[in-house]
Amino acid sequence: MITRLSHLFLRTLREDPADAEVPSHKLLVRAGYIRRVAPGIYSWLPLGLRVLREVERVVREEMDAIGAQEISLPALIPREPYEATGRWTEYGDGLFRLKDRKNADYLLGPTHEELFALTVKGEYSSYKDLPVILYQVQNKYRDEERPRAGILRGREFIMKDSYSFDVTDEGLAESYQRHRAAYQRIFDRLGLRYVIVTATSGAMGGSASEEFLAESTIGEDTYVRSPETGYAANVEAVTTPAPEPLPIDGLPEATVFDTPGTPTIATLVDWANSREEVVERLGRPVTAADTLKNVLVKTRLPGKEWELLAVGIPGDRDVDEKRLEASLAPAEFAMLDDTDFAARPFLVKGYIGPRALRDNKVRYLLDPRVVPGTRWITGADAPGKHVVDLVAGRDFEADGTIEAAEVRDGDPSPDGEGTLVAARGIEIGHIFQLGRKYTNAFDLDVLDVNGKPARVTMGSYGIGVSRLVAVIAEQMHDDKGLRWPAEATPADVHVVIANKDEQARTGAESIAAQLDDAGLRVILDDRKASPGVKFKDAELIGVPTIVVVGRGWANGVVEIRDRVTGEAREVPAGTVVEELA
Amino acid sequence: MITRLSHLFLRTLREDPADAEVPSHKLLVRAGYIRRVAPGIYSWLPLGLRVLREVERVVREEMDAIGAQEISLPALIPREPYEATGRWTEYGDGLFRLKDRKNADYLLGPTHEELFALTVKGEYSSYKDLPVILYQVQNKYRDEERPRAGILRGREFIMKDSYSFDVTDEGLAESYQRHRAAYQRIFDRLGLRYVIVTATSGAMGGSASEEFLAESTIGEDTYVRSPETGYAANVEAVTTPAPEPLPIDGLPEATVFDTPGTPTIATLVDWANSREEVVERLGRPVTAADTLKNVLVKTRLPGKEWELLAVGIPGDRDVDEKRLEASLAPAEFAMLDDTDFAARPFLVKGYIGPRALRDNKVRYLLDPRVVPGTRWITGADAPGKHVVDLVAGRDFEADGTIEAAEVRDGDPSPDGEGTLVAARGIEIGHIFQLGRKYTNAFDLDVLDVNGKPARVTMGSYGIGVSRLVAVIAEQMHDDKGLRWPAEATPADVHVVIANKDEQARTGAESIAAQLDDAGLRVILDDRKASPGVKFKDAELIGVPTIVVVGRGWANGVVEIRDRVTGEAREVPAGTVVEELA
Repeated sequence: MITRLSHLFLRTLREDPADAEVPSHKLLVRAGYIRRVAPGIYSWLPLGLRVLREVERVVREEMDAIGAQEISLPALIPREPYEATGRWTEYGDGLFRLKDRKNADYLLGPTHEELFALTVKGEYSSYKDLPVILYQVQNKYRDEERPRAGILRGREFIMKDSYSFDVTDEGLAESYQRHRAAYQRIFDRLGLRYVIVTATSGAMGGSASEEFLAESTIGEDTYVRSPETGYAANVEAVTTPAPEPLPIDGLPEATVFDTPGTPTIATLVDWANSREEVVERLGRPVTAADTLKNVLVKTRLPGKEWELLAVGIPGDRDVDEKRLEASLAPAEFAMLDDTDFAARPFLVKGYIGPRALRDNKVRYLLDPRVVPGTRWITGADAPGKHVVDLVAGRDFEADGTIEAAEVRDGDPSPDGEGTLVAARGIEIGHIFQLGRKYTNAFDLDVLDVNGKPARVTMGSYGIGVSRLVAVIAEQMHDDKGLRWPAEATPADVHVVIANKDEQARTGAESIAAQLDDAGLRVILDDRKASPGVKFKDAELIGVPTIVVVGRGWANGVVEIRDRVTGEAREVPAGTVVEELA
Repeated sequence: MITRLSHLFLRTLREDPADAEVPSHKLLVRAGYIRRVAPGIYSWLPLGLRVLREVERVVREEMDAIGAQEISLPALIPREPYEATGRWTEYGDGLFRLKDRKNADYLLGPTHEELFALTVKGEYSSYKDLPVILYQVQNKYRDEERPRAGILRGREFIMKDSYSFDVTDEGLAESYQRHRAAYQRIFDRLGLRYVIVTATSGAMGGSASEEFLAESTIGEDTYVRSPETGYAANVEAVTTPAPEPLPIDGLPEATVFDTPGTPTIATLVDWANSREEVVERLGRPVTAADTLKNVLVKTRLPGKEWELLAVGIPGDRDVDEKRLEASLAPAEFAMLDDTDFAARPFLVKGYIGPRALRDNKVRYLLDPRVVPGTRWITGADAPGKHVVDLVAGRDFEADGTIEAAEVRDGDPSPDGEGTLVAARGIEIGHIFQLGRKYTNAFDLDVLDVNGKPARVTMGSYGIGVSRLVAVIAEQMHDDKGLRWPAEATPADVHVVIANKDEQARTGAESIAAQLDDAGLRVILDDRKASPGVKFKDAELIGVPTIVVVGRGWANGVVEIRDRVTGEAREVPAGTVVEELA
């Protein structure tokens, strides 16, 4: 295929679009790949559509290779299946809802667990039919609060979603592993730098779950990894290694001190270091890590009443609300407001301690670092009073532990070796072992070997196909433009006619035709523009190999430029096809 | 590619689905190609999706061949562009409308004239950029009042829509002709029987327009054709050849008769034939065609007041409301109700004549057959009175002619030769010369040769891609199942293992592998089912060539069955691949 720039529906832009902040967004618009229609809603112009189709091709090839079968379900879906699983409501404002002329409720599918479960239920009935993996590549719709960065977070976007159906948990684990391997091959073929992080499953429910995060400083997902061990996890999924309990015998008694004007950790630490007897007890200066901060929230399970919860964490850390949220899910939580405090006078703001929590039967969860034998300075439940050397396991107990404290660079890695480093990434894939949440909602059973109904177990796996185009652009570009990997490029070779001589033009046409014959996809810049304009556009468009038919033509040579390395070399015109084909 | 039925996500059904009335719907469901999700909303299972992709491939190849460029615009579209052209309102209940979380109005695109015009406006600015043809293959949405026959008339469906942009009318005519030719190639390749009919442009506005109708007795579109000349037209587009005017001199005078109890044409004709003097005037028995029926309607242009209109047609014909509607468009019309008559006592129901219409300045349009010199029996504007020998051009005039009378088998063909025959068809393609309606709405200009702005002219062209799957099935099936043409089949060869012998199975596997190597797409029925079940399924699924590895295997022969002709022949197993590849 030869695509002539004289004819291609393409106008490159010299200026960055005003609404673009990240490189991929700027470059994809400037190079004429995409155009904005509305917030989070984009058009794909010819070159953009080609890249998208290439990415889809890679995704399909690897899905087919694990035996997945492609089908296509509607994007416009009646309410009932999503009502059955509760997601009609749970999705909140993120769901596009509409009514038809008969006033029946519909939605635009954000993900299709319900319909796939119903589709399998409609066809299959025996354990012999399973396992099966079905997938589709389809427009999805989510009414994002903050659509972002062009096609990186759109409201209409293309997703590959697949679903596995197995009779046994072992089968599900195998379907999951097949997806995991297929996803690695897909992202490897696209040349992406990414990590696989353990993830909480969020609103999807279910158990084992991993995210594929493309490394990117503009990513919205924070993850941590241990460079020494390769461990990587979503911050929400990081577990805190609990230290060994310490001996309690011989520790000084807990003592209440007057600590006027110390409602914050900083003022409390200042106070402690100003009191010699306190410093002497510890044998070293007091730090924020020696204090125990009790944070009060209220939590609520869907359909239930609000309940009080206290979270105790070392004073040198803040609560990470995303981690807290993940730990409490499916319950939601909210911070206490002044009314809540006023209704509970035993909660003395700034001076809350374990005693009042216990006496008033407030549920109390501790950071895993608060093991028996650790000594704490914490609130004494009276204004201007703290207790020193309150020892866990001797002076107070809790109802359990909770992962709510922030994770920091240098924290020990949960796998027992090395320390964590924070990084940012963009979610490009997500694999879930959903289990039976959705099959329970629809009574999806098959008859087992003994003719008894067995509830099917399900996995759900997604790749943001249109997002991948942005992610590739984000990882592979320079200040001149895009630099597509071989598997995603809109063309294989970009031939620039940089010589007005008629013979050079004929020669370039002939080279393009031969490359086409050799099965390569060619862009031929046959426009009446200056070489400078053509070179700039070639770099902006980002096809990996650029062939320049320029001044050297008179001497029988053309130039081959590698868009990635920037390397250029002259070769005899007659050998170009051989070199590139 | 080898697709094993032991693994394929497919369950054929022996019974017709309860909601299916037409063969294509029954068979596509029974053969496991599609499944219903909601009214007019379907899922594509693996075999159905393959056929759909094949049809898309043919469409794309022929669009690319005329230089059309594929892009992809969103299906979720903001209201504003459709507001600018008035279609936000004009589409009425047929449009799916929704709001986003910020309460902004959106719609699901039913067709994309607006966005394509805006897309071209965004990129192009010179006459040198034109002509350009852009297309997409995309999910479209229309909230049909009566979704019908499975995927034949869906509410979510796939359409290829393309749009041409030209500076001149001649350019538009050429883009139109290129589409016309491409559409013929597409439908020819798919083996469809179809006609091209001149069409009214309906709600799309604009001028020249043709429809491609697949011949089908279950079609919703009625068209007529002249078998002698090949003329074909939508009934709405048929023009009535006006006969030559007749001499007026010597015709008897118009005479009013008492015609008690003759408010209908039938009673009037009976009366006339019972009066010798009336029959003698004509010199033959009176027929309904000698009477002139004046039908009163009210019409209204968008945003205007209702206006009275009288339509005079020969009494042997009914008004065809679709033809009347097309003639009056963009004005709408309604029949008069009792209140309307009560408010206008000069309209004597059953006895309305041209005189009262003239005296009361009612707009009056006549069937083209009512030429000067024709003699009519018509109302005399008083109860129980008619006038005989009222001569057009002598005794009454009208404000013009109108195509409102029904078209009937045997009517003369508008092209001057032969007579019309009515037939039914399914619309599979539609091509329009839109003109400047949409470019005017968005001020889409380019600079012409002289640097002056020139308004671009536009064409719009659509193919119902998902509908085509149903139409092919409708035209190509028998009582046993589907019969796909080579360009649309989900596989090239269907190999049935109809022999339990292990050697036969190995042999079938080897044949399938060789066919696959030869580039053919193979379905291999390797299930543990009886030969009878397998044969039935093969016929139902409808792959054009079936290879049976059965009893003959022991003698080194296999059977090749042609699904279309039904012909079966035995061939040496060793030659199968050679024969089919």
